[in-house]
Amino acid sequence: MNNDMLIRVTRYYRALTRLRAIGLEKVFAHNLADAAGVSAAIVRKDFSLLEIHGQKRGGYEISDLISSIGEILGKGESQNVIIVGCGRIGKALMNYTGFEGDGIRMVAGFDSDPVVYSDASNPIPIYPLSRLEEVIRVHKVKAAIITVPEASAQECYMHLLECGITGVLNFSPITLKPMATPSGVTPVVHNINIGLELEQIFYELKFPKEEKLKA
Amino acid sequence: MNNDMLIRVTRYYRALTRLRAIGLEKVFAHNLADAAGVSAAIVRKDFSLLEIHGQKRGGYEISDLISSIGEILGKGESQNVIIVGCGRIGKALMNYTGFEGDGIRMVAGFDSDPVVYSDASNPIPIYPLSRLEEVIRVHKVKAAIITVPEASAQECYMHLLECGITGVLNFSPITLKPMATPSGVTPVVHNINIGLELEQIFYELKFPKEEKLKA
Repeated sequence: MNNDMLIRVTRYYRALTRLRAIGLEKVFAHNLADAAGVSAAIVRKDFSLLEIHGQKRGGYEISDLISSIGEILGKGESQNVIIVGCGRIGKALMNYTGFEGDGIRMVAGFDSDPVVYSDASNPIPIYPLSRLEEVIRVHKVKAAIITVPEASAQECYMHLLECGITGVLNFSPITLKPMATPSGVTPVVHNINIGLELEQIFYELKFPKEEKLKA
Repeated sequence: MNNDMLIRVTRYYRALTRLRAIGLEKVFAHNLADAAGVSAAIVRKDFSLLEIHGQKRGGYEISDLISSIGEILGKGESQNVIIVGCGRIGKALMNYTGFEGDGIRMVAGFDSDPVVYSDASNPIPIYPLSRLEEVIRVHKVKAAIITVPEASAQECYMHLLECGITGVLNFSPITLKPMATPSGVTPVVHNINIGLELEQIFYELKFPKEEKLKA
């Protein structure tokens, strides 16, 4: 499946876990369409591509959809994540509840500052960077969130790859590029640059035609 | 220019402001390529599409590039931003320094909790939601960052549109969709969903071929 479809299917999955959480048993294509910001026709097309069938007049069984889509998305496996850099954004992410029910688990934070990693008031333990390799190995961590200052981001990234991390979500302003790890694996890197997002929004506001072109 | 090119050009601009800040005067296509994570050939192609010329053996004049690209990106205009929802993520963004030199200015935060909006220890003033319309008008604010809890996000979004906001960066877990504003303008909405990003990373780690397909 291509990336746009992956984003949609992930959104269906999140909507389904929320709908189940509030006690619903059935869902219609247009419910998922609303949740994912697409048309019901696209939901039905995605489902047929994924060979998910069985909508009758009564709609889809939420529990069936969750198990079939969950299997497609590789749920149930270890999805342990660490946060490197426990400043304001790192601490905010530790306390972020948007992961609930997604099988993603924040296992630990890391920081170079003893004042930070000695502070026991956080929802997850914070360790010195010297323990990165150990914690990654023990908890079978594949993915890390980088929230260190811009100046340390590249070094932090390379260190994480050496420690066996293959998935990175980077919040630092610099763009980190996938590079082959010591084990020969090319990591998956997503860069979230808040400044870039805002600049793009202002650009699209200034040149609405470009926005149309883009869409 | 399409969205991929816009992202690259915005990255060139940010790299240039940083290079100027550390005293450089000239830059080469491959410097910008490194900063934006692309090849030097793509940088040259983008520049020729934007009709930016004049690389001699000595490279491009950074100040010339900043002014010409800045003009293309619509810099120099008001890029005032407000933050609605001053919890951990909202406060982290208030203190985020990645905007420096991008002409983006955080003018105020808003929160429903008097304890929060009475706290003077923040880098920008925090007001009650009742003052949204006034502050947006006075500061000519076009864009807002939504960092309210999931349950309040949709209501907050609609209220912002009523107050004249046309650009939204949404950090809440729900997907906000562009909808025509009372003034008939369709807003620019970017959704950043940290949970979705992590799920996509785990998916791409599990199915590397999909990642290749995507690339």
